[in-house]
Amino acid sequence: MPGELNSPQESEVDVLIVGAGPAGYMAALWLARLGVNTRIIDKRSARIFTGQADGLQPRVLEVFETFGFADRAMKEVAVGFEACYYDPDENGRIHRVKTAAEGIPGISRFNGSVVHQGRIEAWLTDAITEFSDGRIKVERPLQPESLEINGSGGDYPVRVVLKRLRDELAMPEQFGHTVQNGLYRQFEGDQETTPALLPGEGLEVVRAKYVLGCDGAHSWVRKQLGIEHEGETTDFVWGVLDMVPITDFPDIRKRCSIHSQNSGSIMIIPRENQLVRLYIQLREQAHHEEPELASASPDRSKKTSSRVDRSKVTAEQILDSARTILHPYTLDAAEIQWFTAYQVGQRVASAFEKDEHVFIAGDACHTHSPKAGQGMNVSMMDTFNLAWKIAYVVKGFAQPSILSTYELERRTVAQDLIAYDQKLSRLFSSKPGEISTQDFRRVIEKGTAFTTGCTVNYDRSILVDKPAGQSRSTPHYSPLATKLAVGMRIPDVKIVMQCDGRPWFFNQRLLSTGQFRVLVFIGDYAARANLKQQMHEVGEYLARADGFAKALGPRWESMLELLLIHASPQANVEWDDFPSVFRVRDDRGVMDYWKILADTPCFHDETGQAHERYGIDKEVGAVVVLRPDGYVAKVVEPTVAGVREVGEWFAHFLLPSTPLVMASI
Amino acid sequence: MPGELNSPQESEVDVLIVGAGPAGYMAALWLARLGVNTRIIDKRSARIFTGQADGLQPRVLEVFETFGFADRAMKEVAVGFEACYYDPDENGRIHRVKTAAEGIPGISRFNGSVVHQGRIEAWLTDAITEFSDGRIKVERPLQPESLEINGSGGDYPVRVVLKRLRDELAMPEQFGHTVQNGLYRQFEGDQETTPALLPGEGLEVVRAKYVLGCDGAHSWVRKQLGIEHEGETTDFVWGVLDMVPITDFPDIRKRCSIHSQNSGSIMIIPRENQLVRLYIQLREQAHHEEPELASASPDRSKKTSSRVDRSKVTAEQILDSARTILHPYTLDAAEIQWFTAYQVGQRVASAFEKDEHVFIAGDACHTHSPKAGQGMNVSMMDTFNLAWKIAYVVKGFAQPSILSTYELERRTVAQDLIAYDQKLSRLFSSKPGEISTQDFRRVIEKGTAFTTGCTVNYDRSILVDKPAGQSRSTPHYSPLATKLAVGMRIPDVKIVMQCDGRPWFFNQRLLSTGQFRVLVFIGDYAARANLKQQMHEVGEYLARADGFAKALGPRWESMLELLLIHASPQANVEWDDFPSVFRVRDDRGVMDYWKILADTPCFHDETGQAHERYGIDKEVGAVVVLRPDGYVAKVVEPTVAGVREVGEWFAHFLLPSTPLVMASI
Repeated sequence: MPGELNSPQESEVDVLIVGAGPAGYMAALWLARLGVNTRIIDKRSARIFTGQADGLQPRVLEVFETFGFADRAMKEVAVGFEACYYDPDENGRIHRVKTAAEGIPGISRFNGSVVHQGRIEAWLTDAITEFSDGRIKVERPLQPESLEINGSGGDYPVRVVLKRLRDELAMPEQFGHTVQNGLYRQFEGDQETTPALLPGEGLEVVRAKYVLGCDGAHSWVRKQLGIEHEGETTDFVWGVLDMVPITDFPDIRKRCSIHSQNSGSIMIIPRENQLVRLYIQLREQAHHEEPELASASPDRSKKTSSRVDRSKVTAEQILDSARTILHPYTLDAAEIQWFTAYQVGQRVASAFEKDEHVFIAGDACHTHSPKAGQGMNVSMMDTFNLAWKIAYVVKGFAQPSILSTYELERRTVAQDLIAYDQKLSRLFSSKPGEISTQDFRRVIEKGTAFTTGCTVNYDRSILVDKPAGQSRSTPHYSPLATKLAVGMRIPDVKIVMQCDGRPWFFNQRLLSTGQFRVLVFIGDYAARANLKQQMHEVGEYLARADGFAKALGPRWESMLELLLIHASPQANVEWDDFPSVFRVRDDRGVMDYWKILADTPCFHDETGQAHERYGIDKEVGAVVVLRPDGYVAKVVEPTVAGVREVGEWFAHFLLPSTPLVMASI
Repeated sequence: MPGELNSPQESEVDVLIVGAGPAGYMAALWLARLGVNTRIIDKRSARIFTGQADGLQPRVLEVFETFGFADRAMKEVAVGFEACYYDPDENGRIHRVKTAAEGIPGISRFNGSVVHQGRIEAWLTDAITEFSDGRIKVERPLQPESLEINGSGGDYPVRVVLKRLRDELAMPEQFGHTVQNGLYRQFEGDQETTPALLPGEGLEVVRAKYVLGCDGAHSWVRKQLGIEHEGETTDFVWGVLDMVPITDFPDIRKRCSIHSQNSGSIMIIPRENQLVRLYIQLREQAHHEEPELASASPDRSKKTSSRVDRSKVTAEQILDSARTILHPYTLDAAEIQWFTAYQVGQRVASAFEKDEHVFIAGDACHTHSPKAGQGMNVSMMDTFNLAWKIAYVVKGFAQPSILSTYELERRTVAQDLIAYDQKLSRLFSSKPGEISTQDFRRVIEKGTAFTTGCTVNYDRSILVDKPAGQSRSTPHYSPLATKLAVGMRIPDVKIVMQCDGRPWFFNQRLLSTGQFRVLVFIGDYAARANLKQQMHEVGEYLARADGFAKALGPRWESMLELLLIHASPQANVEWDDFPSVFRVRDDRGVMDYWKILADTPCFHDETGQAHERYGIDKEVGAVVVLRPDGYVAKVVEPTVAGVREVGEWFAHFLLPSTPLVMASI
């Protein structure tokens, strides 16, 4: 290795994230929030300021809210509320066939939204800075050169050699010079250049406990692990154009799917400010041997010329095709902000990790068309699923065995995504006349629930306690909470803080703190002696020094939050009635007033629907265990037996700092 | 003038704001937003970081939203949702008599909130920086030395000499050293020290078009103008304590008014995080000639010793009194953050301005007890009322005569505030046993609407078109909008953007841009030929080059925004049906899609109640004119005659850049 002559600097880190895209940023955010020693590197010298991915699904906005910055998003994004479908009429003219809701009304407080990726990365960056006190920031341009996993390597078994690049060599070239575009993306050779070292800097060796490959569709990490990217690249070439339109098309600010008689299809996605994004199938492709602007990079142009020549696509070409489809409506651009062209490829990695120490996420695991607006979202949700698990292992809170749930849970999502994308791409890319517009709408409408991100249903595992043999498409409900599917995210509902009568969206109290949450729904306990008795028994059990939470050792509060939710009328309830385990005082004697919630009416809002929303009988109650990522892990009855079962379940994967001895009752 | 030997630097500015408290910051915010050349100075060298005013009324939060930062507020504040009243029982023990809603449910989306003044000033500062591109920032420590108004002084008739202070001399001393406190406040001598000049800096002469005295209860500006502060200072001394409580009092996170049998009264106001503020009448006062810590400042101590000696009050004394009142509940402090003591004074300035070039606002105009949590709010609303009017005159948009409405409108608010405060103070400060607790609750409950800030009702004036002889306490409603009082702020309602089906709170579309808004409510126009006809006639009239808006000259869009609100079912409406004046294209041909709103159901929210909420008949419609500060100025019918009347009304005070010639029809 040439760099070793320079006797490279060596260091250790708990987690090394390779690639600062959506998956990498989300990993860094979670790890920053949980105080894990983390580095994140990227081989490019600059952030993205226009174009690229731009769709934010409701579930991702819910997750942003748990990190405290959904409000920033909501002030900047364009939200999709209506969808229009256009078909040719009997004279071959396009006309509006239907206006429908965009998304699934009521599934989330958030709706699918768009804003350019640079803004999203800015919010994430700010939050990472805040949570890590500025310690974690993207180091760029820094490129990995080799990666080895040594199973007997002690605490830091992954050895990565990093190379610092010169700034000017780390700006990938783009084809076309008058308009910002994304034509440099998806080139296989992207990673294979060998820019010169900075004098005096050279190589660096990092020894990591865990490495996350968040380095995109052509993932270098994936290649090092020898993981295949399985699937196919289709011949369909699509153009994407971000522009400020001048048009008489009446629905330009709604999401539109338009099928013309003879000129193909277009999707219109309104964006922030005056921008509109067009997705369009390009019907004629230029094929040239040598891309004009690639002469400075012969390796790259050689690679390129063997594929469909995306480099020849121009913004004007995309715009012209859009004009033809939209005829007789007019379309011009006051401003073109960005464009790109891509071939639809649909692939899923053959594995998502190696030796449970190196993981890949995001585009490194799954590639597909951008039409469903899912790529960035699924990528972020990959590492939102993974990073807390790594944090738990790094901190000694959990068995490493929980890490196996990452691939189990996210591979199915990737597969569902590819399956949906294949359907959608086939419809969109079909020749005119072949498309049944009714079929088209049916696929979209059926797929919409999936694209909200709110219907992801994780399989049974060490972290999801439900019966074996459940189909992913059939949610599993406990009879104790008949509308709260085990393995799915907890839906939001309004709830009242007992201490001050303030109504909250529950999601705003279920922040991403890294804690599992034990939600004790105790129903209308004041009206039923048995529930009152149960509540106090459960409270006493939870408070025992040798039992349950406290058995997890001195740091148990980093792992668990205990919340009580009752549904008794406020007039029948007094603060001191509640078990003291939910009214904890700190060392100074100051009470934590925020662990008891009321599912009751309040003076200023419409509340009191939580038991009903979750299918919990107010005369029976339930204990619901949420994972740190907000997914329902387990449902039991609100009794000592139920809570003891939860404790035993935790003991399968949580590690106490003192031995976990379950109390016997 | 001694400084003139230094040949002071001279400059001109449109508006000079003296004092960077809530009134000054709000003035600077508005003027920054409207692009007015502004300076703001303060004689203190440091911002406030704890204590002081902390209440934010719903109306102020609505205004913050129109400037884009209510969301920042809502993430940090403690919101009051419930109020508890405690009285002695037959054994003399305090007990909870009633739990009620805090505030008026439904009057606003916001509820009364608390957070310390330093945070509020931080949000304002950030917004001022953003709107002014960093040009406007508080210059400190800078103290005015003289002020002259010269009526024949041309464009800049107010001459102010400023003196730059040494930093260390501009930190007002506070009494007591272990806990941050506010005991330096309200000293008459505060302004009369003469700190040394910085070498080489000395004096500065500023010639201003307008000067705003936002310099507090002991306003230097007010004194220069010879304005009296009329009213009285009572003998009541109250203590305020911000602390983290250790207590078994069950309602410590609710707003409580507690009357003990023999030990006086206390108000509990929960604050952000774990803090709680106590307001308490101090029963025993220490009277000493020489405050302990004032020896370095003999002038000040001399002034002080002639009044009740607030400087001897300690946090422990306030806490002890609170303990006695709360008995048998226990109370200790894990942490004391801030405290102060004050004498209740109730005064209103004899005038709010001089020569329509120098204005006073905030505490300079009105002082009262802090118990109703109004001081900071009314102060901010003073300059929210004033600054846009000054901006209009400075920019040549309006006759200077509109400035007279400031005192007309805000004096009545100040008087109402003092009257309410007198009632409240008398009740609170009465000797035990004299208080009828029922009377107390009645006063509070009646006053609550006032304290929301949402019921302010401005009198008839050049800027509020309603019949003469209306009582302020009886809102005036046009028969065309029977629930929209002329002179009051427009209440919020949900509304749908026509172009994309997005539901909005109307207040989020009525941003503080400085524009008057002409809201054309056209009802269910699609179902009624006469309304459709009217809409198109009004549209044509509004669009005429010589009529209405355009008669206001090339900058008319800085003064007016035209919005159309319809209530026709979406299936009956097409974008191109609406008059083109509401579908304006810019020079490039890009359409502004955001001037047409729908008062209809939408897919994702409960909308379609605006006509009903405002008492506008969907078969008749109405035109509502809003002032730049969101107050209803005028209501007419949605016809050419109605809109022409609006134009004629505008012509009374708006100045076109070309002569305003009303179109004749």
